Amino acid sequence: MQQTAEPVSRQHQIARAALACFSRAGFHGASMQDICAEAGMSAGALYRYFPSKAAIIVAIVEAEREAHAQMFQPLDDAPDPLAALQELGEVFLTHHLSGVSGMLASDVVAEAARNPEVQAAVEKTATFIRETLTRALVRGQTLGVVDPSLDTEAAGYLIMSLGDGMCAQPAGPPGLDAPRIVATLNLLLTRFCRPAGDLAS
Amino acid sequence: MQQTAEPVSRQHQIARAALACFSRAGFHGASMQDICAEAGMSAGALYRYFPSKAAIIVAIVEAEREAHAQMFQPLDDAPDPLAALQELGEVFLTHHLSGVSGMLASDVVAEAARNPEVQAAVEKTATFIRETLTRALVRGQTLGVVDPSLDTEAAGYLIMSLGDGMCAQPAGPPGLDAPRIVATLNLLLTRFCRPAGDLAS
Repeated sequence: MQQTAEPVSRQHQIARAALACFSRAGFHGASMQDICAEAGMSAGALYRYFPSKAAIIVAIVEAEREAHAQMFQPLDDAPDPLAALQELGEVFLTHHLSGVSGMLASDVVAEAARNPEVQAAVEKTATFIRETLTRALVRGQTLGVVDPSLDTEAAGYLIMSLGDGMCAQPAGPPGLDAPRIVATLNLLLTRFCRPAGDLAS
Repeated sequence: MQQTAEPVSRQHQIARAALACFSRAGFHGASMQDICAEAGMSAGALYRYFPSKAAIIVAIVEAEREAHAQMFQPLDDAPDPLAALQELGEVFLTHHLSGVSGMLASDVVAEAARNPEVQAAVEKTATFIRETLTRALVRGQTLGVVDPSLDTEAAGYLIMSLGDGMCAQPAGPPGLDAPRIVATLNLLLTRFCRPAGDLAS
Protein backbone atom coordinates (compact mmCIF):
# COMPACT_ATOMS: atom_id res chain seq x y z
CA MET A 1 0.00 0.00 0.00
CA GLN A 2 2.71 2.47 0.99
CA GLN A 3 4.41 2.04 -2.37
CA THR A 4 1.50 3.68 -4.19
CA ALA A 5 1.58 6.85 -2.08
CA GLU A 6 4.27 8.59 -4.12
CA PRO A 7 2.74 7.97 -7.57
CA VAL A 8 -0.72 9.15 -6.43
CA SER A 9 0.66 12.48 -5.23
CA ARG A 10 2.62 12.83 -8.47
CA GLN A 11 -0.60 12.24 -10.39
CA HIS A 12 -2.32 14.97 -8.38
CA GLN A 13 0.56 17.32 -9.11
CA ILE A 14 0.28 16.63 -12.85
CA ALA A 15 -3.52 16.96 -12.81
CA ARG A 16 -3.23 20.33 -11.04
CA ALA A 17 -0.65 21.53 -13.58
CA ALA A 18 -2.82 20.30 -16.47
CA LEU A 19 -5.87 22.08 -15.03
CA ALA A 20 -3.94 25.35 -14.95
CA CYS A 21 -2.85 24.87 -18.59
CA PHE A 22 -6.32 23.83 -19.80
CA SER A 23 -7.94 26.79 -18.06
CA ARG A 24 -5.60 29.14 -19.89
CA ALA A 25 -5.53 27.56 -23.34
CA GLY A 26 -8.19 24.83 -23.52
CA PHE A 27 -7.57 21.13 -24.03
CA HIS A 28 -6.44 21.57 -27.60
CA GLY A 29 -4.39 24.69 -26.99
CA ALA A 30 -2.37 23.14 -24.14
CA SER A 31 0.40 20.73 -25.16
CA MET A 32 2.00 17.93 -23.14
CA GLN A 33 5.13 20.15 -23.06
CA ASP A 34 3.14 23.01 -21.50
CA ILE A 35 1.92 20.60 -18.83
CA CYS A 36 5.49 19.34 -18.18
CA ALA A 37 6.70 22.93 -17.78
CA GLU A 38 3.83 23.82 -15.46
CA ALA A 39 4.38 20.67 -13.35
CA GLY A 40 8.17 21.21 -13.33
CA MET A 41 8.93 17.70 -14.59
CA SER A 42 10.44 16.08 -17.65
CA ALA A 43 8.36 14.63 -20.48
CA GLY A 44 9.73 11.17 -19.58
CA ALA A 45 8.47 11.51 -16.00
CA LEU A 46 5.06 12.77 -17.12
CA TYR A 47 4.54 10.01 -19.71
CA ARG A 48 5.26 7.40 -17.01
CA TYR A 49 2.01 8.48 -15.33
CA PHE A 50 -0.12 9.59 -18.27
CA PRO A 51 0.32 8.32 -21.84
CA SER A 52 -1.84 11.13 -23.33
CA LYS A 53 -3.73 14.33 -22.64
CA ALA A 54 -6.95 12.30 -22.75
CA ALA A 55 -5.64 10.15 -19.88
CA ILE A 56 -5.02 13.31 -17.83
CA ILE A 57 -8.54 14.57 -18.61
CA VAL A 58 -9.97 11.23 -17.46
CA ALA A 59 -7.97 11.55 -14.20
CA ILE A 60 -9.36 15.06 -13.69
CA VAL A 61 -12.93 13.84 -14.29
CA GLU A 62 -12.35 11.03 -11.80
CA ALA A 63 -10.94 13.42 -9.17
CA GLU A 64 -13.97 15.66 -9.73
CA ARG A 65 -16.22 12.59 -9.19
CA GLU A 66 -14.47 11.88 -5.87
CA ALA A 67 -15.09 15.49 -4.85
CA HIS A 68 -18.75 15.15 -5.83
CA ALA A 69 -19.07 11.89 -3.89
CA GLN A 70 -17.95 13.67 -0.70
CA MET A 71 -20.18 16.67 -1.40
CA PHE A 72 -23.19 14.39 -2.08
CA GLN A 73 -22.72 12.13 0.96
CA PRO A 74 -25.33 14.02 3.06
CA LEU A 75 -27.98 12.99 0.52
CA ASP A 76 -27.52 9.41 1.75
CA ASP A 77 -26.87 10.23 5.41
CA ALA A 78 -28.87 13.29 6.48
CA PRO A 79 -32.13 12.78 8.44
CA ASP A 80 -34.06 14.87 5.85
CA PRO A 81 -32.82 14.21 2.31
CA LEU A 82 -34.81 17.13 0.83
CA ALA A 83 -33.21 19.57 3.29
CA ALA A 84 -29.84 18.01 2.44
CA LEU A 85 -30.54 18.58 -1.26
CA GLN A 86 -31.23 22.26 -0.61
CA GLU A 87 -28.02 22.64 1.42
CA LEU A 88 -26.15 20.88 -1.38
CA GLY A 89 -27.61 23.39 -3.85
CA GLU A 90 -26.12 26.21 -1.82
CA VAL A 91 -22.70 24.54 -1.53
CA PHE A 92 -22.79 23.71 -5.22
CA LEU A 93 -23.65 27.27 -6.25
CA THR A 94 -20.90 28.71 -4.09
CA HIS A 95 -18.40 26.13 -5.37
CA HIS A 96 -19.30 26.18 -9.05
CA LEU A 97 -20.21 29.78 -9.74
CA SER A 98 -16.57 30.52 -8.89
CA GLY A 99 -15.64 30.05 -12.55
CA VAL A 100 -12.80 27.63 -13.25
CA SER A 101 -14.79 24.49 -12.68
CA GLY A 102 -17.63 25.55 -14.97
CA MET A 103 -15.31 26.58 -17.75
CA LEU A 104 -13.64 23.20 -17.59
CA ALA A 105 -16.95 21.33 -17.45
CA SER A 106 -17.81 22.57 -20.95
CA ASP A 107 -14.39 21.52 -22.22
CA VAL A 108 -14.82 18.07 -20.74
CA VAL A 109 -18.29 17.58 -22.24
CA ALA A 110 -17.11 18.85 -25.64
CA GLU A 111 -14.11 16.50 -25.52
CA ALA A 112 -16.31 13.59 -24.43
CA ALA A 113 -18.30 13.91 -27.66
CA ARG A 114 -15.19 12.85 -29.58
CA ASN A 115 -13.18 10.67 -27.20
CA PRO A 116 -14.79 7.42 -25.96
CA GLU A 117 -12.40 7.21 -22.98
CA VAL A 118 -13.43 10.69 -21.78
CA GLN A 119 -17.07 9.92 -22.65
CA ALA A 120 -17.02 6.84 -20.40
CA ALA A 121 -15.59 8.86 -17.48
CA VAL A 122 -18.15 11.65 -17.95
CA GLU A 123 -21.04 9.19 -18.18
CA LYS A 124 -19.87 7.43 -15.03
CA THR A 125 -20.02 10.77 -13.18
CA ALA A 126 -23.45 11.64 -14.64
CA THR A 127 -24.79 8.21 -13.66
CA PHE A 128 -23.36 8.55 -10.16
CA ILE A 129 -24.95 12.00 -9.64
CA ARG A 130 -28.30 11.01 -11.17
CA GLU A 131 -28.54 7.81 -9.12
CA THR A 132 -27.55 9.58 -5.91
CA LEU A 133 -30.25 12.22 -6.46
CA THR A 134 -32.86 9.56 -7.28
CA ARG A 135 -31.87 7.54 -4.18
CA ALA A 136 -32.30 10.64 -2.01
CA LEU A 137 -35.76 11.28 -3.48
CA VAL A 138 -36.81 7.66 -2.92
CA ARG A 139 -35.58 7.89 0.68
CA GLY A 140 -37.55 11.13 0.99
CA GLN A 141 -40.67 9.30 -0.20
CA THR A 142 -40.31 6.60 2.48
CA LEU A 143 -39.83 9.37 5.08
CA GLY A 144 -42.90 11.27 3.84
CA VAL A 145 -41.05 14.46 2.83
CA VAL A 146 -41.17 13.78 -0.93
CA ASP A 147 -44.33 13.36 -3.04
CA PRO A 148 -44.88 9.58 -3.33
CA SER A 149 -46.15 10.00 -6.91
CA LEU A 150 -42.99 11.81 -8.12
CA ASP A 151 -41.10 10.02 -10.93
CA THR A 152 -37.83 9.93 -8.96
CA GLU A 153 -35.68 8.90 -11.95
CA ALA A 154 -36.94 11.71 -14.17
CA ALA A 155 -36.73 14.16 -11.24
CA GLY A 156 -33.13 13.09 -10.51
CA TYR A 157 -32.27 13.72 -14.16
CA LEU A 158 -33.91 17.18 -14.15
CA ILE A 159 -32.21 18.25 -10.90
CA MET A 160 -28.85 17.09 -12.27
CA SER A 161 -29.51 19.01 -15.52
CA LEU A 162 -30.28 22.13 -13.52
CA GLY A 163 -26.90 21.82 -11.77
CA ASP A 164 -25.11 21.14 -15.06
CA GLY A 165 -26.72 24.18 -16.65
CA MET A 166 -25.62 26.45 -13.80
CA CYS A 167 -22.06 25.14 -14.27
CA ALA A 168 -22.14 25.90 -17.99
CA GLN A 169 -22.69 29.62 -17.30
CA PRO A 170 -20.21 29.96 -14.45
CA ALA A 171 -20.44 33.71 -14.05
CA GLY A 172 -24.18 33.76 -13.38
CA PRO A 173 -26.24 36.57 -14.86
CA PRO A 174 -25.30 40.17 -13.99
CA GLY A 175 -27.41 41.68 -11.20
CA LEU A 176 -28.39 38.29 -9.77
CA ASP A 177 -26.38 37.48 -6.66
CA ALA A 178 -25.92 33.99 -5.16
CA PRO A 179 -28.38 34.51 -2.24
CA ARG A 180 -31.25 35.26 -4.64
CA ILE A 181 -30.41 32.24 -6.77
CA VAL A 182 -30.12 30.01 -3.68
CA ALA A 183 -33.48 31.21 -2.30
CA THR A 184 -35.28 30.59 -5.60
CA LEU A 185 -33.54 27.23 -6.09
CA ASN A 186 -34.71 26.17 -2.62
CA LEU A 187 -38.25 27.20 -3.53
CA LEU A 188 -38.07 25.21 -6.78
CA LEU A 189 -36.79 22.07 -5.03
CA THR A 190 -39.37 22.30 -2.22
CA ARG A 191 -42.36 22.93 -4.47
CA PHE A 192 -41.27 20.32 -7.01
CA CYS A 193 -40.55 17.52 -4.55
CA ARG A 194 -42.77 17.87 -1.47
CA PRO A 195 -46.02 15.91 -1.11
CA ALA A 196 -48.82 17.56 -3.14
CA GLY A 197 -51.00 18.49 -0.12
CA ASP A 198 -48.13 20.03 1.84
CA LEU A 199 -48.45 23.82 1.70
CA ALA A 200 -45.49 24.82 3.91
CA SER A 201 -43.37 27.59 2.28
CA MET B 1 -31.84 44.75 -50.85
CA GLN B 2 -31.73 42.16 -53.58
CA GLN B 3 -27.94 42.45 -53.75
CA THR B 4 -27.52 40.95 -50.28
CA ALA B 5 -29.56 37.83 -51.04
CA GLU B 6 -26.70 35.89 -52.59
CA PRO B 7 -24.12 36.49 -49.82
CA VAL B 8 -26.61 35.52 -47.10
CA SER B 9 -27.32 32.18 -48.72
CA ARG B 10 -23.58 31.65 -49.20
CA GLN B 11 -23.08 32.32 -45.50
CA HIS B 12 -25.72 29.72 -44.64
CA GLN B 13 -24.01 27.23 -46.94
CA ILE B 14 -20.66 27.82 -45.21
CA ALA B 15 -22.21 27.64 -41.73
CA ARG B 16 -23.86 24.32 -42.62
CA ALA B 17 -20.57 22.94 -43.93
CA ALA B 18 -18.73 24.17 -40.83
CA LEU B 19 -21.35 22.55 -38.57
CA ALA B 20 -20.77 19.21 -40.28
CA CYS B 21 -16.97 19.54 -39.87
CA PHE B 22 -17.20 20.69 -36.22
CA SER B 23 -19.57 17.84 -35.35
CA ARG B 24 -17.06 15.34 -36.71
CA ALA B 25 -13.79 16.83 -35.45
CA GLY B 26 -14.57 19.64 -32.99
CA PHE B 27 -13.70 23.31 -33.46
CA HIS B 28 -9.99 22.72 -33.07
CA GLY B 29 -9.88 19.53 -35.11
CA ALA B 30 -11.63 21.08 -38.13
CA SER B 31 -9.51 23.36 -40.33
CA MET B 32 -10.61 26.15 -42.66
CA GLN B 33 -9.53 23.81 -45.51
CA ASP B 34 -11.88 21.08 -44.24
CA ILE B 35 -14.70 23.61 -44.25
CA CYS B 36 -13.83 24.75 -47.81
CA ALA B 37 -13.88 21.11 -48.98
CA GLU B 38 -17.19 20.42 -47.25
CA ALA B 39 -18.77 23.59 -48.68
CA GLY B 40 -17.30 22.91 -52.13
CA MET B 41 -15.69 26.34 -52.44
CA SER B 42 -12.21 27.81 -52.65
CA ALA B 43 -10.37 29.28 -49.66
CA GLY B 44 -10.53 32.70 -51.34
CA ALA B 45 -14.32 32.51 -51.62
CA LEU B 46 -14.68 31.35 -48.02
CA TYR B 47 -12.41 34.05 -46.57
CA ARG B 48 -14.49 36.69 -48.37
CA TYR B 49 -17.37 35.80 -46.05
CA PHE B 50 -15.58 34.71 -42.87
CA PRO B 51 -12.06 35.84 -41.90
CA SER B 52 -11.68 33.09 -39.26
CA LYS B 53 -13.18 29.97 -37.71
CA ALA B 54 -14.28 32.13 -34.76
CA ALA B 55 -16.30 34.30 -37.17
CA ILE B 56 -18.05 31.16 -38.45
CA ILE B 57 -18.80 30.05 -34.89
CA VAL B 58 -20.28 33.46 -34.12
CA ALA B 59 -22.49 33.15 -37.23
CA ILE B 60 -23.66 29.70 -36.07
CA VAL B 61 -24.44 31.05 -32.58
CA GLU B 62 -26.39 33.91 -34.17
CA ALA B 63 -28.35 31.54 -36.43
CA GLU B 64 -29.12 29.41 -33.36
CA ARG B 65 -30.37 32.57 -31.60
CA GLU B 66 -32.71 33.31 -34.53
CA ALA B 67 -34.04 29.75 -34.26
CA HIS B 68 -34.57 30.22 -30.52
CA ALA B 69 -36.34 33.54 -31.08
CA GLN B 70 -38.90 31.80 -33.30
CA MET B 71 -39.25 28.87 -30.88
CA PHE B 72 -39.72 31.27 -27.93
CA GLN B 73 -42.23 33.57 -29.64
CA PRO B 74 -45.28 31.87 -28.00
CA LEU B 75 -43.93 32.93 -24.58
CA ASP B 76 -44.72 36.52 -25.58
CA ASP B 77 -47.88 35.79 -27.59
CA ALA B 78 -49.77 32.83 -26.09
CA PRO B 79 -52.82 33.54 -23.88
CA ASP B 80 -51.29 31.46 -21.04
CA PRO B 81 -47.50 31.97 -20.80
CA LEU B 82 -47.07 29.11 -18.31
CA ALA B 83 -48.81 26.67 -20.66
CA ALA B 84 -46.63 28.05 -23.49
CA LEU B 85 -43.55 27.41 -21.37
CA GLN B 86 -44.56 23.80 -20.89
CA GLU B 87 -45.18 23.33 -24.61
CA LEU B 88 -41.81 24.93 -25.29
CA GLY B 89 -40.21 22.42 -22.90
CA GLU B 90 -41.60 19.60 -24.98
CA VAL B 91 -40.46 21.13 -28.29
CA PHE B 92 -37.07 21.85 -26.77
CA LEU B 93 -36.62 18.30 -25.48
CA THR B 94 -37.56 16.84 -28.83
CA HIS B 95 -35.29 19.27 -30.68
CA HIS B 96 -32.27 19.11 -28.40
CA LEU B 97 -32.18 15.54 -27.20
CA SER B 98 -31.56 14.66 -30.86
CA GLY B 99 -27.81 14.98 -30.33
CA VAL B 100 -25.93 17.30 -32.69
CA SER B 101 -27.13 20.51 -31.15
CA GLY B 102 -26.15 19.50 -27.64
CA MET B 103 -22.72 18.32 -28.65
CA LEU B 104 -22.09 21.62 -30.37
CA ALA B 105 -23.46 23.63 -27.44
CA SER B 106 -20.62 22.34 -25.23
CA ASP B 107 -18.07 23.22 -27.89
CA VAL B 108 -19.44 26.73 -28.18
CA VAL B 109 -19.42 27.31 -24.43
CA ALA B 110 -15.89 25.90 -24.13
CA GLU B 111 -14.71 28.14 -26.99
CA ALA B 112 -16.46 31.16 -25.47
CA ALA B 113 -14.30 30.83 -22.36
CA ARG B 114 -11.26 31.74 -24.48
CA ASN B 115 -12.58 33.89 -27.32
CA PRO B 116 -14.19 37.23 -26.44
CA GLU B 117 -15.99 37.42 -29.82
CA VAL B 118 -17.63 34.01 -29.25
CA GLN B 119 -18.24 34.91 -25.58
CA ALA B 120 -20.15 38.04 -26.59
CA ALA B 121 -22.36 36.05 -29.02
CA VAL B 122 -23.06 33.35 -26.40
CA GLU B 123 -23.87 35.92 -23.71
CA LYS B 124 -26.23 37.71 -26.07
CA THR B 125 -28.13 34.44 -26.58
CA ALA B 126 -28.17 33.66 -22.84
CA THR B 127 -29.45 37.17 -22.07
CA PHE B 128 -32.12 36.88 -24.76
CA ILE B 129 -33.36 33.52 -23.41
CA ARG B 130 -33.24 34.59 -19.76
CA GLU B 131 -35.07 37.86 -20.42
CA THR B 132 -37.71 36.13 -22.56
CA LEU B 133 -38.38 33.60 -19.79
CA THR B 134 -38.52 36.33 -17.14
CA ARG B 135 -40.88 38.41 -19.30
CA ALA B 136 -43.21 35.39 -19.69
CA LEU B 137 -43.23 34.85 -15.91
CA VAL B 138 -44.00 38.53 -15.26
CA ARG B 139 -46.83 38.36 -17.80
CA GLY B 140 -48.04 35.20 -16.02
CA GLN B 141 -48.08 37.14 -12.74
CA THR B 142 -50.28 39.88 -14.20
CA LEU B 143 -52.60 37.17 -15.58
CA GLY B 144 -52.74 35.37 -12.21
CA VAL B 145 -51.23 32.08 -13.44
CA VAL B 146 -47.79 32.66 -11.87
CA ASP B 147 -47.07 33.17 -8.16
CA PRO B 148 -46.84 36.96 -7.63
CA SER B 149 -44.08 36.48 -5.05
CA LEU B 150 -41.81 34.51 -7.42
CA ASP B 151 -38.42 36.14 -8.12
CA THR B 152 -38.93 36.14 -11.89
CA GLU B 153 -35.31 37.00 -12.72
CA ALA B 154 -33.89 34.18 -10.61
CA ALA B 155 -36.60 31.81 -11.87
CA GLY B 156 -35.82 32.74 -15.50
CA TYR B 157 -32.17 31.98 -14.84
CA LEU B 158 -32.96 28.60 -13.26
CA ILE B 159 -35.32 27.53 -16.06
CA MET B 160 -32.70 28.52 -18.64
CA SER B 161 -30.06 26.55 -16.71
CA LEU B 162 -32.33 23.51 -16.70
CA GLY B 163 -32.60 23.73 -20.50
CA ASP B 164 -28.84 24.24 -20.88
CA GLY B 165 -28.14 21.22 -18.68
CA MET B 166 -30.44 19.00 -20.73
CA CYS B 167 -28.56 20.13 -23.86
CA ALA B 168 -25.20 19.28 -22.30
CA GLN B 169 -26.20 15.62 -21.96
CA PRO B 170 -27.84 15.24 -25.36
CA ALA B 171 -28.42 11.51 -25.18
CA GLY B 172 -30.52 11.65 -22.02
CA PRO B 173 -30.13 8.88 -19.45
CA PRO B 174 -30.71 5.28 -20.56
CA GLY B 175 -34.16 3.94 -19.67
CA LEU B 176 -35.73 7.41 -19.44
CA ASP B 177 -37.78 8.21 -22.53
CA ALA B 178 -38.82 11.70 -23.64
CA PRO B 179 -42.50 11.39 -22.52
CA ARG B 180 -41.44 10.67 -18.91
CA ILE B 181 -39.02 13.61 -18.93
CA VAL B 182 -41.65 15.92 -20.47
CA ALA B 183 -44.29 14.89 -17.90
CA THR B 184 -41.94 15.50 -14.97
CA LEU B 185 -40.65 18.77 -16.46
CA ASN B 186 -44.27 19.98 -16.78
CA LEU B 187 -44.85 19.08 -13.15
CA LEU B 188 -41.71 20.96 -12.10
CA LEU B 189 -42.68 24.09 -14.04
CA THR B 190 -46.29 24.06 -12.77
CA ARG B 191 -45.42 23.50 -9.12
CA PHE B 192 -42.53 25.97 -9.20
CA CYS B 193 -44.40 28.81 -10.90
CA ARG B 194 -48.11 28.65 -10.08
CA PRO B 195 -49.61 30.75 -7.28
CA ALA B 196 -48.90 29.16 -3.86
CA GLY B 197 -52.52 28.37 -2.97
CA ASP B 198 -53.33 26.77 -6.34
CA LEU B 199 -53.49 23.00 -5.85
CA ALA B 200 -54.42 21.91 -9.40
CA SER B 201 -52.20 18.98 -10.56
